[in-house]
Amino acid sequence: MCAPLVMETVARSLSRRAFLASGLGAFSGVALAQARVPGKAFSRAADLTHELSPEIPLFPGAEPMRITTLVTVRQNGYYGNRLDLWEHSGTHMDAPAHFVEGAPTAERLPVASLIAPLAIIRIREKAARDPDAQVTAEDILAYERAYGRLPRGAFVAMDSGWEARWKDPKAFLNQDASGILHFPGFSPEAAEFLVREREIVGVGVDTLSLDFGPSRDFRAHVTLLGAGKYGLENLAGLAQVPPSGALIFVGGPKHKGASGGPVRAVAVW
Amino acid sequence: MCAPLVMETVARSLSRRAFLASGLGAFSGVALAQARVPGKAFSRAADLTHELSPEIPLFPGAEPMRITTLVTVRQNGYYGNRLDLWEHSGTHMDAPAHFVEGAPTAERLPVASLIAPLAIIRIREKAARDPDAQVTAEDILAYERAYGRLPRGAFVAMDSGWEARWKDPKAFLNQDASGILHFPGFSPEAAEFLVREREIVGVGVDTLSLDFGPSRDFRAHVTLLGAGKYGLENLAGLAQVPPSGALIFVGGPKHKGASGGPVRAVAVW
Repeated sequence: MCAPLVMETVARSLSRRAFLASGLGAFSGVALAQARVPGKAFSRAADLTHELSPEIPLFPGAEPMRITTLVTVRQNGYYGNRLDLWEHSGTHMDAPAHFVEGAPTAERLPVASLIAPLAIIRIREKAARDPDAQVTAEDILAYERAYGRLPRGAFVAMDSGWEARWKDPKAFLNQDASGILHFPGFSPEAAEFLVREREIVGVGVDTLSLDFGPSRDFRAHVTLLGAGKYGLENLAGLAQVPPSGALIFVGGPKHKGASGGPVRAVAVW
Repeated sequence: MCAPLVMETVARSLSRRAFLASGLGAFSGVALAQARVPGKAFSRAADLTHELSPEIPLFPGAEPMRITTLVTVRQNGYYGNRLDLWEHSGTHMDAPAHFVEGAPTAERLPVASLIAPLAIIRIREKAARDPDAQVTAEDILAYERAYGRLPRGAFVAMDSGWEARWKDPKAFLNQDASGILHFPGFSPEAAEFLVREREIVGVGVDTLSLDFGPSRDFRAHVTLLGAGKYGLENLAGLAQVPPSGALIFVGGPKHKGASGGPVRAVAVW
């Protein structure tokens, strides 16, 4: 029915220096075998997913995952593990049902909502000054002045630079003496703006929570999930991706009754 | 840097009848908000992933997954579960390390290998006659005569129609009186052909195993994984997707030391 794809690993054959010299190097990504079919060409990919392990930062109270090796190639001829984990571990999804009774669980989200234009709102400077920085509606409007209106069906991600703390769980949680967390997130009014004024599929952060650390009422969560949007937390690699023009693919959980779960998220552009 | 995406849910606004009448309806999929950026347009998506639950078919000897609800919206203000599962459950990946010591684990596969042109080889007729049917090198060559040579970096999937048995685990395993399994898979010589004569990233099946049921030596597995390719087992929904011209996105596992694990696989075209 369709013409076959003709694939060429064009980008792979370019040296890093040649690539940078070409002017395409501002956002790096990984060279992708380039599909030459009209309408399906993109040449770069970036993994937006942290490695999941028992050592990663978790929201206070959550138990670390366990990985138990059941068989090995040497002893059994094949290798495999049993996994035991809290759904909200690592780079993961919050489905609407995580906060709202009767709302969709992750496995029931429309598959079309898992492939979306990716809009990245960078608040690295203000987050470096203030760990309690929030994405505001004004940040979103400033983004739109630079890159155009958020496309219909967009996935909106906050890049606060917090990823740099991932390997140091204490710094990632950033709890003060009274146990209050301090890290960036979406403000409730930005969540309200996205839900009322734009048509998005979901929102992502490079921190532990859609709401900023000190939040007590999780109002960004409630607003977004209550409107049927999904969230992604602990995103990685956003710095590699251009703020506009990429697509995100969200390899979301498909288990029964999922309040969420680990995802594999990848950007292509 | 890039122009913003202009999204329109064109396909959504078409009725099913209008869509079929348009001549695009031979492969159905789900209407996707259509990205209008030159080079990134596709309009349909299909979920290639079964729902994961304690009730699904498993290879003999594997223990079913457990889903334990730890908190609920009513009692705790939010809902979440603990998951406990064997890596090779449901629609899942076999990483090269599943059969080959020292070979790459799933989280180390290059992200570019997770986005691939999807070639679907249908053997429904012969599988209906013979549950031990295998994809042969000749089946692959016949596919190429119809659709052109397998593109570089392709993911090659067998559509044997076996998915129809998914909801009936006994029929899906299809064990005979002496315990031997009977279901379709890739023949060792087809695996050899793909590894030596073509450049593929991986191979998928709509059955429990890359090798057909009666296999004792798992030679298709050993050949493919030994060459660094990955496998996907228990794929769903292949009938909806055109045999050539689609892309597969493999939301593969990212946990440490993964021999494999559940994936979210989606086709777009």
